[in-house]
Amino acid sequence: MAKEIERKFLIDLKLIGDLPDGKLISQGFIGTNDKTVVRARIKGDEAFLTLKGEVTGFTRSEFEYQIPVDDATNIIKELCSGGVVEKTRYEIIYENHTWEIDIFHGQNEGLVVAEVEVQSESESVSLPKWIVEEVTGDPKYFNVSLLSNPYSQW
Amino acid sequence: MAKEIERKFLIDLKLIGDLPDGKLISQGFIGTNDKTVVRARIKGDEAFLTLKGEVTGFTRSEFEYQIPVDDATNIIKELCSGGVVEKTRYEIIYENHTWEIDIFHGQNEGLVVAEVEVQSESESVSLPKWIVEEVTGDPKYFNVSLLSNPYSQW
Repeated sequence: MAKEIERKFLIDLKLIGDLPDGKLISQGFIGTNDKTVVRARIKGDEAFLTLKGEVTGFTRSEFEYQIPVDDATNIIKELCSGGVVEKTRYEIIYENHTWEIDIFHGQNEGLVVAEVEVQSESESVSLPKWIVEEVTGDPKYFNVSLLSNPYSQW
Repeated sequence: MAKEIERKFLIDLKLIGDLPDGKLISQGFIGTNDKTVVRARIKGDEAFLTLKGEVTGFTRSEFEYQIPVDDATNIIKELCSGGVVEKTRYEIIYENHTWEIDIFHGQNEGLVVAEVEVQSESESVSLPKWIVEEVTGDPKYFNVSLLSNPYSQW
């Protein structure tokens, strides 16, 4: 078991400057009837099957397994209702933390968020100047929500 | 991707005679809102995470990955609503096919089924004399159904 402890922020992309090379992420979700997330993700030339539990504070259980890309393609096609969320992910290191910058595409074009993983909820994080607002725990920004209620419809 | 093509039967255990050593299986399911199954299974000293699609005829898509037993224990505890299905599985080879005999426990005590996997829906299978009735595709016998509507309540 792993715990994912993560904070999420809206950012001002203009303040970041040049981004490093990014990786295209395409992901689908198996519809669950509670707050558990079952996600198939293709990231560049790798793929992952991930289970996540309910969010409590900044924390949720996470179980992630690398799977063949062909499997992920077929899981998304056959088992995931609701299409895919597509985004490009860029990683930036800022004062000992790795920030993941997600620039969304398709129905979520225009949405840009940054996530930072921490080891405990009390860990202090230096916020870069391009941070605008924290949205940790806001269900609207969960990727699974961005399928049914995409940014273009907000 | 794999396709699981499987037939399921009720059997008369008294006609089988001695069974070989069996393996205890304990499995939980993440609640989904369609016909997809997300299962964590502990089988003896191994564990698996399995996704299955909707059944069409004898066939369904199946994606299975071995995972650490500790992960499966925690997935069942944290993410699977509705408890576990427990059974002991015995394998018997009969005329070129491997039959899986599942003797259920707990709330499903008394239920015994046999499954045989085939390569195509048209493949012919010699039925052993202990077969009583085919129940392939009957949702009542799906393991996920045996949680919410166990055999003891039929």
